[in-house]
Amino acid sequence: MFAARRHFGCRRVFAAIKQCLAFAVNKRNFCEMESNFNVIQKGTENDTSFRLFYCDKQNVPISPFHDIPLFADQNNQTYNMVVEIPRWTNAKMEIATKEPLNPIKQDVKNGELRYVKNCFPHRGYIWNYGALPQTWENPKHLDESTGCKGDNDPIDVCEIGARVHQRGAVIQVKLLGCFALIDEGETDWKIMAIDVNDPLAPYLSDIEDVNRHMPGLLRATQEWFKIYKIPDGKKANEFAFNGEAKNREFAHKIVSDTHKYWKELVSSPTNESGLDLTNVTLSFSPYKIDDSDSILKLAPEKSEPKEISDLEKASIDKWYYVSLS
Amino acid sequence: MFAARRHFGCRRVFAAIKQCLAFAVNKRNFCEMESNFNVIQKGTENDTSFRLFYCDKQNVPISPFHDIPLFADQNNQTYNMVVEIPRWTNAKMEIATKEPLNPIKQDVKNGELRYVKNCFPHRGYIWNYGALPQTWENPKHLDESTGCKGDNDPIDVCEIGARVHQRGAVIQVKLLGCFALIDEGETDWKIMAIDVNDPLAPYLSDIEDVNRHMPGLLRATQEWFKIYKIPDGKKANEFAFNGEAKNREFAHKIVSDTHKYWKELVSSPTNESGLDLTNVTLSFSPYKIDDSDSILKLAPEKSEPKEISDLEKASIDKWYYVSLS
Repeated sequence: MFAARRHFGCRRVFAAIKQCLAFAVNKRNFCEMESNFNVIQKGTENDTSFRLFYCDKQNVPISPFHDIPLFADQNNQTYNMVVEIPRWTNAKMEIATKEPLNPIKQDVKNGELRYVKNCFPHRGYIWNYGALPQTWENPKHLDESTGCKGDNDPIDVCEIGARVHQRGAVIQVKLLGCFALIDEGETDWKIMAIDVNDPLAPYLSDIEDVNRHMPGLLRATQEWFKIYKIPDGKKANEFAFNGEAKNREFAHKIVSDTHKYWKELVSSPTNESGLDLTNVTLSFSPYKIDDSDSILKLAPEKSEPKEISDLEKASIDKWYYVSLS
Repeated sequence: MFAARRHFGCRRVFAAIKQCLAFAVNKRNFCEMESNFNVIQKGTENDTSFRLFYCDKQNVPISPFHDIPLFADQNNQTYNMVVEIPRWTNAKMEIATKEPLNPIKQDVKNGELRYVKNCFPHRGYIWNYGALPQTWENPKHLDESTGCKGDNDPIDVCEIGARVHQRGAVIQVKLLGCFALIDEGETDWKIMAIDVNDPLAPYLSDIEDVNRHMPGLLRATQEWFKIYKIPDGKKANEFAFNGEAKNREFAHKIVSDTHKYWKELVSSPTNESGLDLTNVTLSFSPYKIDDSDSILKLAPEKSEPKEISDLEKASIDKWYYVSLS
């Protein structure tokens, strides 16, 4: 698109477009242009009180876990993805599965905000990382590929397009394949996908196309997931399928399975998952409520970001040289 | 330091220290704590008018090229380094060698602000990148190692410590070695160095220590410089010494040579270099002036950063998959 801008030479038109885009991006309460969903920040950034809640177009608070549809367009097999962690950042943001309306919050470990360690040569996450709504890795289901049970979360996605998406963005992706990660003994599928609006999206239809257009990325992805907890004193993670990525068809099947588990979860009158299933849109669910505004009102108001001290910054930015030998 | 904080358990003392540090960092006009030099921003960030000027402790405007001493402590062989580009960023900031007082500015190419392309798996520069003051790669000197002439700039440094330093910071480093890069036919030494205050600094004394403590970094450094202009349509850069890094002793010799060239440059009454040699502190230099304030006054006042549009951001953040085959 940038190249096109130069070639067109039609500077005025592009300046106008750029202004519009800048305006849309600037309105921080509304995370992404053309999205059907808005995010509303509550609490304080760089603090345990930080939350990103979601609203629909009518500003009705909703759950990104349960109320954002899995499919953006089922006929075209495009999916909605909730971006939790923008590429090249390492604050471990995630959908709070156990809180009402499941806002995004930063994970807390041992009382401190969690940042994933930077493992050389990588800086933070190497994709836009997030989740597919309306999916659930069932902790009672023993996966036949991994021999492990699900991790009780929505399914994870690595979006490999060129743009760095904003935290909280809801984007439309197509699936390309997946890795069967075994993270501390739990099945933790990692779906590989690309933003349907990425310039390369038309050229990527299946997993082998990733190697063709982004040589090294799949190998780096495998390595990243293998080592990322080693600086925290954990063992290297393992994979099913000898660490090979499975193809698009396989990924669709996995997502379809986790969507089914999710549907059973939110339909059942008994809930032993520990997850908060409160939703606004699911007529078949016993957890549907009408007054979601009241939940939003309980959250502390947005305030200025908490300053990250120089010492904390040094820790967040540290590069770890991990050796598997 | 972060680990120490936990182990001490003496939270109050550390909270106080952290507050002090946060305060120091917050005062943006003064770039780094404990520095003998302050930076003063002029013009507009993300715009061709952006400049970072330097002042000494008495707030006298100085040149970072000519007035900051090469040595922080000659007995200990520690050097001052001017950080132009913080690690993991790609805005091509550099000392404006041809402007009075040589502020830092963003390089402009074809009328547009220059961002170095992100070559997978790297994000921006992979070290704190900058220059050693009072050095000059003489374009009339044919280097016997590279067979090429100097690039008319102060010598470049890659600082490999754990911290991400602020743009404009003046830090103290010790030298570990160097690469003899040939960048578009010019000799362009890359000095490898580490912040003397880095926790690892005591363990790094020479180039082979880098491989021991940061396995992969030297290889990545070589690869980075080789490929970084390929996305701009240029050829791969070459190295002398088959791309091997030279040791500390060699680096000291190279820096010493470039310091000598610089001294000749600023001492000579004739100046054919095209560089601005205006300085405030060099009694032996015909380019010494008394009223440096007047230069600062000519620069446009600091204003709010210019917004980077969504399209520009997409271009700046793009990842290029460069293949050398």
